[in-house]
Amino acid sequence: MVPGKLDLGFPTGLPTFALRQNPFMKKKIQPWPVIETEKLGHLKLFDCEVQKVRNPYSGALLDITLLTGNDSVNVVAVNSDDKAILINQYRFGIGAYIAELPGGMVDDGEDHLQAAKRELMEETGYEATEWHYLGCVASNPVFMDSYVHHYLALNATPTGQQNLEPAEDIELLEIPVDELKEMLSRGKFLHPHTVSGVLRSLIQLNRLT
Amino acid sequence: MVPGKLDLGFPTGLPTFALRQNPFMKKKIQPWPVIETEKLGHLKLFDCEVQKVRNPYSGALLDITLLTGNDSVNVVAVNSDDKAILINQYRFGIGAYIAELPGGMVDDGEDHLQAAKRELMEETGYEATEWHYLGCVASNPVFMDSYVHHYLALNATPTGQQNLEPAEDIELLEIPVDELKEMLSRGKFLHPHTVSGVLRSLIQLNRLT
Repeated sequence: MVPGKLDLGFPTGLPTFALRQNPFMKKKIQPWPVIETEKLGHLKLFDCEVQKVRNPYSGALLDITLLTGNDSVNVVAVNSDDKAILINQYRFGIGAYIAELPGGMVDDGEDHLQAAKRELMEETGYEATEWHYLGCVASNPVFMDSYVHHYLALNATPTGQQNLEPAEDIELLEIPVDELKEMLSRGKFLHPHTVSGVLRSLIQLNRLT
Repeated sequence: MVPGKLDLGFPTGLPTFALRQNPFMKKKIQPWPVIETEKLGHLKLFDCEVQKVRNPYSGALLDITLLTGNDSVNVVAVNSDDKAILINQYRFGIGAYIAELPGGMVDDGEDHLQAAKRELMEETGYEATEWHYLGCVASNPVFMDSYVHHYLALNATPTGQQNLEPAEDIELLEIPVDELKEMLSRGKFLHPHTVSGVLRSLIQLNRLT
């Protein structure tokens, strides 16, 4: 079922290639020095700071805003009926309930896979016996320093109870894997990290085409 | 070349379905009332505020952080050699140069399509004769109120000069459309909005399978 032939380019589970020389760059990369950092405070999901940075090519000094925080994870959990367990969740940013993958932030000191298993249980009450790491995307590389790591979890079964935080209201959805592809194609997912996680799962399952 | 049969579910170009009753929800949606809003200030790319919100089901009061700002756009521009014009750009969030789509924020009062054309010109020096709107994703529905709108631009040709801001250092990339699919499949794009824009363009071009 899982061909396992996907070369994600992240053998260690970390997005190291972004931090090395970009293989697509023609010119030699110079670092952009950070001249000064001002902490602006804690905003629940992240800390906020402003950095004064020098453009190494033009010499221009500029202020950039940076949100620093923990990585997060999301999970495509598939049950024995070939259905994926998704959730309808209220999202404050856009003030709407949207269909998306279960997931959330990695706790301090927590392993990414452990976080994926915990979030799946807390948000859906499901466990799974077979876990595949599918690489990551940056949360938002423009102004966030964190990454979102994608997992595929097979043989998912309901073994527990949802354990929601006060900010969460979550309804479960069972969506046939083939319909995931349809939803992806029709642009039905509004959460970009769900787009990325669903896409990689369909590739890993050989179900995209 | 462009079948135009893609039903994105956004006939007006706006993501209205998220703001209506979520068609996947079984229970009746109750609004989450905002009790209080505290403006925290302007952070260059967005304004920041904290809202006190009531969970309509449990009654719990909670503070959420919200970043409010303009929508943005990104563009898959394809030239007559069937190559897409991408960019290597320095991203402060992760401190690395990554391959991604040209794009940026919509200016106040600017039309989305106009912003897409402007950003393509400023960042790459290219114009295109045929533009297709491909729908949108939320920037990050968890804590941002804005959307990223995707465009496909055909018959792209270099007609001008890059016009970069001090925070920008951009190198052009010409990538065959078939290689875009390969890069998407191998998880080579770290910017989630590039993943979403490239995916929709390949679907629109019937080049995903």
